[in-house]
Amino acid sequence: MTLPPEFALIAQHFRPLAGPGALDLSDDAALLTPPPGRELVLAADAMVAGVHFLPDDSPGNIARKLLRTNLSDLAAMGAQPLGYLLTVSLPRETPPDWLQGFAAGLAADQHEFGLRVLGGDTTSTAGPVSLSLTIIGHVAPGTALRRNGARAGDELWVSGTVGDGTLGLSVALGERAGDAAGHLADRYRIPRPRMALGQGLVGLAHAAMDVSDGLVQDLGHLCRASGCGAVLEAVLVPLSPAAAAVLAAEPALLRRVLTGGDDYELLFAAPPGAAAGIAALAAATGTTATRIGRFVAGDPLVTVLDGQGAPMTLSQEGWSHF
Amino acid sequence: MTLPPEFALIAQHFRPLAGPGALDLSDDAALLTPPPGRELVLAADAMVAGVHFLPDDSPGNIARKLLRTNLSDLAAMGAQPLGYLLTVSLPRETPPDWLQGFAAGLAADQHEFGLRVLGGDTTSTAGPVSLSLTIIGHVAPGTALRRNGARAGDELWVSGTVGDGTLGLSVALGERAGDAAGHLADRYRIPRPRMALGQGLVGLAHAAMDVSDGLVQDLGHLCRASGCGAVLEAVLVPLSPAAAAVLAAEPALLRRVLTGGDDYELLFAAPPGAAAGIAALAAATGTTATRIGRFVAGDPLVTVLDGQGAPMTLSQEGWSHF
Repeated sequence: MTLPPEFALIAQHFRPLAGPGALDLSDDAALLTPPPGRELVLAADAMVAGVHFLPDDSPGNIARKLLRTNLSDLAAMGAQPLGYLLTVSLPRETPPDWLQGFAAGLAADQHEFGLRVLGGDTTSTAGPVSLSLTIIGHVAPGTALRRNGARAGDELWVSGTVGDGTLGLSVALGERAGDAAGHLADRYRIPRPRMALGQGLVGLAHAAMDVSDGLVQDLGHLCRASGCGAVLEAVLVPLSPAAAAVLAAEPALLRRVLTGGDDYELLFAAPPGAAAGIAALAAATGTTATRIGRFVAGDPLVTVLDGQGAPMTLSQEGWSHF
Repeated sequence: MTLPPEFALIAQHFRPLAGPGALDLSDDAALLTPPPGRELVLAADAMVAGVHFLPDDSPGNIARKLLRTNLSDLAAMGAQPLGYLLTVSLPRETPPDWLQGFAAGLAADQHEFGLRVLGGDTTSTAGPVSLSLTIIGHVAPGTALRRNGARAGDELWVSGTVGDGTLGLSVALGERAGDAAGHLADRYRIPRPRMALGQGLVGLAHAAMDVSDGLVQDLGHLCRASGCGAVLEAVLVPLSPAAAAVLAAEPALLRRVLTGGDDYELLFAAPPGAAAGIAALAAATGTTATRIGRFVAGDPLVTVLDGQGAPMTLSQEGWSHF
């Protein structure tokens, strides 16, 4: 059984998700009256089966990961979500209930995060499922968190726990055991964008970004944007109990934790005086925030120290597509 | 030779194209201050190699087609372009100069149409080149042209010429000869979005859309949105000299002209009294506009009449992906 024409698919699965300006997804474009006195924040991420998710992941989880990776970009800027546009390219042999599950995942997260679909496109492809989402959020003008505000003397913080996503991928691929409760694989499949934390960091943090391609590599981006260096203490990096158990059995995986992708936590710079405010904010927003290092004057280099205070050598700093 | 890391690719090829709010494409998201007192218009289209363009089309033409199909959606709403976000998923074996040509195509059309890239994402894929673009435009509040305003008694108009794109695809695939000057293949590869015509139709036309998936099928969408029927006279459909020559040799291709995709012309409804204004607007904006039928009361059905005034039966009305 093949898919019905895309107009029927859109009407059945996506129209119920549409916001007021989406014009029932049946016009050439959507209309959006920007919230008065706000600055818009825009990001776009693509996801391809076999690269960003496993081809046999459930379509609902794939939809949620797509939406959440984009939400995480808004969180990193301290923005509130408003809406999104979505393009979906599917093999012709995709079973009809795949789109049903995909739309159900979107519906759940639209409800959880408070945004609606505004428009998009559905096409066929001779390759793997290929998705793209553009998200629109808003901030008070001039308040967006940027990557370029870190300065020497700032403390380096990260939200939540690091490494669950990359270890979860490894578990999901059957490369290693552990994770009996499924925590790691779940973290790989469903990111937790730190919306409330990011919004609360406006005024507290000097700079922020989300960690998606590996902690060390992404910290390097933050350093280059800010024009300073950073020292990261590996033993301070927060681990989930599940990740800690995997590392206890295989300590060499620490390098993977520091450089693997799919964390979707916030990495941020804040002055030492902000520590109490950050701790209170993290508690109030249902997450944690951990100091893992500091920013230093000099070239935009990341130094990773091991438990003895000696620099670690990493063969790669993070994920690259090419 | 494989591609360098995506950060280097983005810095080299896309950063020079970025607008002021794009933050050098090196932050998590872009910032956009909406033009005061304007309504935003948003559309997203995906394009996949082998579906929307030929895999050996030049990367510059592919980029221009991607941007122009989205610009055509803005034209259909009467909107002015502002900016866009773009995701590009490429096979790892893509030659480095492919992206150079792709960016050069974007640069040329950014200049021609007056917009800048705001953000995006570059990823790998195990499948064909897969592209997605979200475009942002603006209109005076409440003035956007919609599909739902046609009424019985309105005249049915189309801009430019119809069928060049679908005949051009056929020529490009080597299915037929003719088109020695390359007009048809060029029209398949590089759409001409009717920006100035669309903007000028605000206040003149009751409804508009762009023709991308076949004249008859798209007219059906306009009829369903407006709740009326339409009568289309096939002999009135404007043909380019190159298309007319192909049809003279193979008259049965008229059905393909009426139902093939890739026209990217504007289809619109206007009251009879607007005819002189439309003709003047078309002349002033460097295109043509042709009356090809009328809207009628009743069910949202499209009747296509042949040269003898008899209804034509079409085995399909347009392109469907599935």
